[in-house]
Amino acid sequence: MDRENSVNHGEDVVIDGRDIEHDQLMDWKETGTYSQPLLSKRVNTTSQIAIVGANVCPIESLDYEIVENELFKQDWRSRKKVQIFQYIILKWGFALIIGLLTGLVGIFNNIAVENISGFKLLLTTDLMSQHKYVKAFAVFAGGNIGLATAAAALCAFIAPAAAGSGIPEVKAYLNGVDAYSILAPSTLFVKIFGSVLGVSAGFVVGKEGPMVHTGACIASLLGQGGSRKYHLTWRWLRYFKNDRDRRDLITCGAAAGVAAAFRAPVGGVLFALEEAASWWRSALLWRTFFTTAVVAIVLRSFIQLCATGSCGLFSEGGLIMYDVSAAEVIYSSADILAVLLLGTIGGILGSLYNYLIDKVLRIYSIINERGAVSKILLVISIALLTSCCAYGLPWFAKCIPCPTSVSCPNTDKSGNYKSFQCPAGYYNDLASLFLNTNDDAIRNLLSTSTTREFHISSLFVFFAAAYFLGIVTYGIAIPSGLFIPVILAGACYGRLVGRLFEPISKLDTGLFALLGSASFLGGTMRMTVSLCIILLELTNDLLLLPLVMLVLLISKTVADNFNKGVYDQIVKLKGFPYMEAHAEPYMRQLVALDVVPGPLVTFSGVEKVGNILHALRTTGHNGFPVIDEPPFSEAPELCGLVLRSHLLVLLKGKVFSRNRVLAGEEIVHRFAAFDFAKAGSGKGIKLEDLEIDDEEMEMYIDLHPITNTSPYTVVETMSLAKAAILFRQLGLRHMCVVPKSQERPPIVGILTRHDFMSEHILGLYPHVKPHD
Amino acid sequence: MDRENSVNHGEDVVIDGRDIEHDQLMDWKETGTYSQPLLSKRVNTTSQIAIVGANVCPIESLDYEIVENELFKQDWRSRKKVQIFQYIILKWGFALIIGLLTGLVGIFNNIAVENISGFKLLLTTDLMSQHKYVKAFAVFAGGNIGLATAAAALCAFIAPAAAGSGIPEVKAYLNGVDAYSILAPSTLFVKIFGSVLGVSAGFVVGKEGPMVHTGACIASLLGQGGSRKYHLTWRWLRYFKNDRDRRDLITCGAAAGVAAAFRAPVGGVLFALEEAASWWRSALLWRTFFTTAVVAIVLRSFIQLCATGSCGLFSEGGLIMYDVSAAEVIYSSADILAVLLLGTIGGILGSLYNYLIDKVLRIYSIINERGAVSKILLVISIALLTSCCAYGLPWFAKCIPCPTSVSCPNTDKSGNYKSFQCPAGYYNDLASLFLNTNDDAIRNLLSTSTTREFHISSLFVFFAAAYFLGIVTYGIAIPSGLFIPVILAGACYGRLVGRLFEPISKLDTGLFALLGSASFLGGTMRMTVSLCIILLELTNDLLLLPLVMLVLLISKTVADNFNKGVYDQIVKLKGFPYMEAHAEPYMRQLVALDVVPGPLVTFSGVEKVGNILHALRTTGHNGFPVIDEPPFSEAPELCGLVLRSHLLVLLKGKVFSRNRVLAGEEIVHRFAAFDFAKAGSGKGIKLEDLEIDDEEMEMYIDLHPITNTSPYTVVETMSLAKAAILFRQLGLRHMCVVPKSQERPPIVGILTRHDFMSEHILGLYPHVKPHD
Repeated sequence: MDRENSVNHGEDVVIDGRDIEHDQLMDWKETGTYSQPLLSKRVNTTSQIAIVGANVCPIESLDYEIVENELFKQDWRSRKKVQIFQYIILKWGFALIIGLLTGLVGIFNNIAVENISGFKLLLTTDLMSQHKYVKAFAVFAGGNIGLATAAAALCAFIAPAAAGSGIPEVKAYLNGVDAYSILAPSTLFVKIFGSVLGVSAGFVVGKEGPMVHTGACIASLLGQGGSRKYHLTWRWLRYFKNDRDRRDLITCGAAAGVAAAFRAPVGGVLFALEEAASWWRSALLWRTFFTTAVVAIVLRSFIQLCATGSCGLFSEGGLIMYDVSAAEVIYSSADILAVLLLGTIGGILGSLYNYLIDKVLRIYSIINERGAVSKILLVISIALLTSCCAYGLPWFAKCIPCPTSVSCPNTDKSGNYKSFQCPAGYYNDLASLFLNTNDDAIRNLLSTSTTREFHISSLFVFFAAAYFLGIVTYGIAIPSGLFIPVILAGACYGRLVGRLFEPISKLDTGLFALLGSASFLGGTMRMTVSLCIILLELTNDLLLLPLVMLVLLISKTVADNFNKGVYDQIVKLKGFPYMEAHAEPYMRQLVALDVVPGPLVTFSGVEKVGNILHALRTTGHNGFPVIDEPPFSEAPELCGLVLRSHLLVLLKGKVFSRNRVLAGEEIVHRFAAFDFAKAGSGKGIKLEDLEIDDEEMEMYIDLHPITNTSPYTVVETMSLAKAAILFRQLGLRHMCVVPKSQERPPIVGILTRHDFMSEHILGLYPHVKPHD
Repeated sequence: MDRENSVNHGEDVVIDGRDIEHDQLMDWKETGTYSQPLLSKRVNTTSQIAIVGANVCPIESLDYEIVENELFKQDWRSRKKVQIFQYIILKWGFALIIGLLTGLVGIFNNIAVENISGFKLLLTTDLMSQHKYVKAFAVFAGGNIGLATAAAALCAFIAPAAAGSGIPEVKAYLNGVDAYSILAPSTLFVKIFGSVLGVSAGFVVGKEGPMVHTGACIASLLGQGGSRKYHLTWRWLRYFKNDRDRRDLITCGAAAGVAAAFRAPVGGVLFALEEAASWWRSALLWRTFFTTAVVAIVLRSFIQLCATGSCGLFSEGGLIMYDVSAAEVIYSSADILAVLLLGTIGGILGSLYNYLIDKVLRIYSIINERGAVSKILLVISIALLTSCCAYGLPWFAKCIPCPTSVSCPNTDKSGNYKSFQCPAGYYNDLASLFLNTNDDAIRNLLSTSTTREFHISSLFVFFAAAYFLGIVTYGIAIPSGLFIPVILAGACYGRLVGRLFEPISKLDTGLFALLGSASFLGGTMRMTVSLCIILLELTNDLLLLPLVMLVLLISKTVADNFNKGVYDQIVKLKGFPYMEAHAEPYMRQLVALDVVPGPLVTFSGVEKVGNILHALRTTGHNGFPVIDEPPFSEAPELCGLVLRSHLLVLLKGKVFSRNRVLAGEEIVHRFAAFDFAKAGSGKGIKLEDLEIDDEEMEMYIDLHPITNTSPYTVVETMSLAKAAILFRQLGLRHMCVVPKSQERPPIVGILTRHDFMSEHILGLYPHVKPHD
C-alpha cells in the first residue's frame, strides 16, 4: 500500500474509518489553517485496505503520471516511426480482440443459460403437467441448489473477488485503485462460469455486471505485456506495460461488457463514459465505439447462426431485446401526470433499494468472513428461498381463462401463459412470471396490448418478491449483476402503476412497465444518458425517448436527496479509496500541509545502498523524493521523485560504485527503458528477490537516471480542495508538497490518494464540520 | 490579449504563423534541452489575434482556475447554506431557460423557413404550371437574391461574427479562447434572423451550426450576471460571474442547439461532449441532458400545436425527421462489401470536401476583408449561381412517367414528384431534388421503396451540384451550417452507389442514401458516437446501428489519413489558439523554460501604485507574479499571482497607504468578493477609467488580499509536452514556471496558451522537426 503496512484493524476501520489514534492528532486551530512546521509523526491508518471478495486486501494506487527521467527521455528520443506504428496497430488490434472475446463470452453465456435453465424449466413443467407436483418441486429446487452450490464453490475457493457485480471494482480500478486480484485470470474464469451457473440457478441476478467485469478482465490480461511463465512474450507487447495504456484498454473492456450484455453498443460506450471511467479523452470515445461495434457484429453473426436452430434451446430472446414498438406512443397531460408520479415513487423505492442493499451487505460481510463453508451455506439458503417463492407463490394465484386470440397455455420454456396447476384453457399469471428466466419475465411484463394479462394482486405479489429477493441475493458469493433485478422489480412496479391508472391514462401497460424500469434504474444506479440509451436500444423505439428521459430525470433527482448511487455505495462499503471528481466543502478550510503524513523519507541524488534497502524494508512508501545536495548542487534542491519499483530494478542490476560519484552514463547504457516498465498488478521484482551482501551495502548508487525530475508539486498553503481536484484531474499517485519559503528544506511531504479520504481527514480534524 | 497588444502583422501571421523576428531566437542545442538562465527578451508574436467574422481581433483566454486569495477564502467561509441553495436553483433554472429559449428559437426558425421558402416555391411552381417560365425564374431568383441580400446585410453591418457555422467559435470558446463578440447579443440576433433568411434563400446551407451558436449565445447572455445598462440586476445572478460557470452554461447551450436543430436530444448531449467541449464533468452530462430534454418537450408541444394547421405552411417535416423504418434491414456479405466500399470512397470525398473548403475560405477571406459591399456582392453572386443551378439544371432531365400507385405529380411545396416542364402524368426527377428545400430534398433521397424514382444521370448531376455548391457557399457572409450540405451530398452519393450496386445488393436505396450521408459526415466532421446517435434519432431505426457504425468508422479512419476535421480546420484557419488534448511529439524535446517569454514583470507584496500603473500601461499581461521580500518575508518568495482585472478593481477602490505596510484587514473590509467577480467579455473596469493623481502614484498598496496564493507551478525542466498536457487538463490561463535551484529568484516566467502554439514554438526553434 502507499504508505504503511503496519495497520490491520480489520473491517471496522474500513467501514467506518474513524478508528484512529487520537494522541497522534495535531493541534487544531479554529482559524482553519495550520502552518507550523511539521514535526510530529502523523500516520494515515485509514483506507489502506479494502474488502475484495470477502478478504481484506492492501490497496495500491496506479501510476498514471508521465514519468520523466533520463532513461525514459532517452527512449522517447530514440523511438522510431515504425515503433509508433507498431503501437497504433496494437492499440486497435487489442480493441478488436477485446470486442471479439467479450462478444464470444456474451454469446456463450446466453446460450449456456438458456439451455441449462430451459432444460430445468421444461422438466419441471413436464412433471407438473403429469400432476407430480412434489417431484417437480424436488427437480426445480434441487436443480437450483445444485447450480447455486457450484457457483458458490467456484467463488469461495477459486476467486473470492469474482463475487458480486464487478462494476464497483472496475469503477475503482479506473479511478486508480489497484486491489489484488480484481482483474486476475482466475477472477475472469470464475466470473464467466459462476455467472452462467448463478443465472441458471434462478436467482434474481443479472449477467450485465459480470459481463462488464469479464470485459475488463479480458482487457487487463491483454495489457499485461505478455507472460514469461507461459512463454507469451512478444516485443510489441511491452508498449502496453504501463498503467495509462491499461486504463484505456479496461475502459474499452467495460464498454464491451455492457454492449455484450444488452446488445447495446452505444449504451456500452456511454456507460463506460458516465459510470465506469474517471478519466476520459475523446480519442477513447472513438476506440470504445470501435470495440462495441465489434461486439455488436459478433452477436449479430451468432444470432443469425443460431436462428437455424443449432444452439439448442437458445433463441434470439436470450439476448435481451424487448420490443415495445407495437404500442402507439401518443400521450396527453393526464399521462404525463401519471408518469411524474411513477418517476417520483420509483425514485423513492430505488433509493430504498440502495439503503436496504447496504444493510444486507453489512450483515452478509460478517457471514462471508467466516470462511468458504459459511459462504456456500448462505448461497444455498438463498437458493432455497428463491425456489420456494418461485414454486410456492403461484399456488395462491387464481386460474385465469385463456384469451382466445393466442395459443394458451404455452408449452415452451419462455411462454407468456403458463398452465401450472390450472386446467386446460386456463393459465396461472403468477407462474408466467415466476417460472421463467428473469429475461423472459421482463419480456412478459413489457409485452404490449396485454393489459389484463396479469391480475393486480399477482403483480403486487411478484413485485414484492422480486424487490426483496433482489436485495437479499446481492452480496452472496456468486457473480451477480444488479441491472436485471432492478429492471424486473421496476417493470412490475410500472405495470402495477399502469393498471392503477388505467381509468385516466391511455398509455399501454407495457410502456408503463418500461417507464417503471427506467424509474427504478434511475433511482438505484443514478445514471442518465447511458441508461436512457440502453433502454432505447433494448426496446428499439426512439419515440419513447422524451418520456424515458423525463422519468430518469425525476427518479434520479428524487433519489439523490436520500443517498448515493448503488455502485458508489458499494465502492465505499468495500473501502476502496475512491477519489471523487469534486472536493468536499470542508476541504476548503484545510490546506495541503494539514494532511501531509510524516515522517518523510528522502534520498540523496547519490545514495548509499544500505540506506535505500533500509527505507524500502521499513516503510511501505512507493515514492521517495530525491534531494540533491552539495557537491552535486549549490544548495539542497528537489531533484525529483523515485519510485519503489524503479529502485528495485536498479538495485537488482547492481550498478554500484565505491565512491559517491555520478554514474548516470553507465546506468543509461546498462538498462533499457523497458526494464523499468510497470509490471502487472502483483508482479514485478520484490524486495525479497534482492541479494545484496554487506560489502555492497556500503556502496553508492546514482539515482539521477531513474528520478522523475518533474513531479507535480503544490505549495503547502494550497487549500486541500484545490489540491484534491488537481490530484484527481491529473490521475496522480504522488503529489509533492513544497514549502512556501525558500529557506526551508525543498520538500515538505508527499500526498497520496489515501490522504484525501474523508475518514482520514475527519479523523485528524474531528472539529471540522463535514457538511459545512 | 494575454501578453502583448503591440503586434498586428495582419492575416498571414495568423494563417501561417511563422513570421517571427529570427534575431530574437535563442541558441538551439541539438540535445533538445536548454537550461541557461533566461536573459534575452523573447516575445511571443504569434496567435495573439484571430479572424472573427472577417475582422482581426485580439484574443484573450478565459480563467478557469480556482483563485485562492484571502478575499475569496473569506467569502467561501461565510457562504451560507441558503446561498448554496440559491446557486443550485439558479443553475437548474438556467438550464431550463436555455432549453426553453433554444427550443423556441428552433421552432421559430423552422416555421419561418417553411413559410418563406414554401411561399416562394409555390409561387414558382404556380407560374410554371401556367408555362410562364421566364417570370417563374425571375420570381425564384429574385426571391433568393432578395433574401440573400438581407441576410448578408445583417451579417456585414451588424455582426460579422455571426457569419459561418458558429461551431468552431463555440468550440474555441469552450477550449478557453475569449474572442471579441463571438457570443454577443448582436451576434445572437443576426444568427437567428440571418439563418432564417439564408436557408430560405435556397442556399445549400443548414441551420444546425447556427442553432448551436444560438444556443451558446443564449447561454452566454444568461451568464453575464445581469446588466446594469438595462437594469437587469439581481443578487442571485452574481454567482454566475465567473468563467467556470459560464463554460458549463455554454456547453448546455451547444447541446440544446443540436437538440433543437435535429430533434435529437441525446445526439445533442453527445455532440457537446464529443465535439464542442474541452472539459467535461459527469455532473455536466446530467445538466446538458436536462436541457436537451426541455428542448425536446418544447418542440413536441409545438408540433402538436401546428398539427392543427395553425402554423401556415409549416408541417412536421420541417423539423427534419427522415423515416426509413419502412425498409427491412437484412443484409448479406455482398451488402457489407458494398457498404465498405461506400464508406471508403465517402471518407475520401469527405476529406476532399474539407480540403476544398479550406481553399475556398482562404480566397473568400481576401474578398470579405475588402468591406461590407464586397461581402454582399459575393453573397449575391453565389445566390445567383445557386438559383441558376436549381432552375436551370432540371431542364436537362427527361420527363419520367409517373408511377401508378402514388399521386403524381404533386402540387404541394414538398412533393416528391415535381412536374416542372413535363406534361401531365410525367415528372421531372431533378426538379424533385432542386426545387425543394434542402430538408425535403434529403427526405426524397432517403425515401425507401422508391428505387427507380431517380435516374442515375440525375443523381449524378445533383450530387455534383450539391457537393460544389456546398463548398462555395460556406464562407460567404451568412450564417451557414455544414451538416445539411454534407448530408445532402452524402445522401445523393449513397443513392448513386445504391443504384450502381443494385445487381448485387438487396439493401434498399433509401438505406444506401442514409449510409452515404453517414460516410460523408464521418469524412468531414470526424465525429463518431454523436453522429451515430444523431442519424439514429433522425431516422428512428435502431436496427441500422451496426451498419451506420461501420460506415462512420471506416470513413473517419480513411479521412483522418488526409487532413483534420472541418471544424478543427476552421478553428486553425481563424487563428484561435486552440489547446489540443495531446502534446505534439516534438514538445518532448523542449522544456518549459525554452518557451518562457521575457521580460517578466513582477510586483512586491506591497507595491507602489505608480509601478503597478506603469506595468498595466506598458504591458498587455493579464497575470503578474507577486514576490514577497524582506521585511515581509525572510527571503524573496513567490507569494502568488495577481490578475489584471483584480488589480484594476483594487486601484479603483483607492485603499492606498503612505508607507510600505500591510493593509490587508482594511481591504478585506472595504471589498466584497463579488467586487472581483469576472465581468463578461469586453466589460469590466478599463485602465482608462482610473483617475489617480500624482500624489497617489507615490503611495503603496497591499496586494496580498487579492493574490492567488496557490497558482499552479511547474519546474523549469519539465518537458513542454508534460506542461502542455497539464495546462490543458486543468484549463489554465497562467502557468508559473519556477526554478529548479533555490538560489535563484523564485519565479522564472509565466506560460500562457499562446506559448504552447506550434507556430510560436516552431518559430523559436526552427530546427525541431515537427513530426518527429
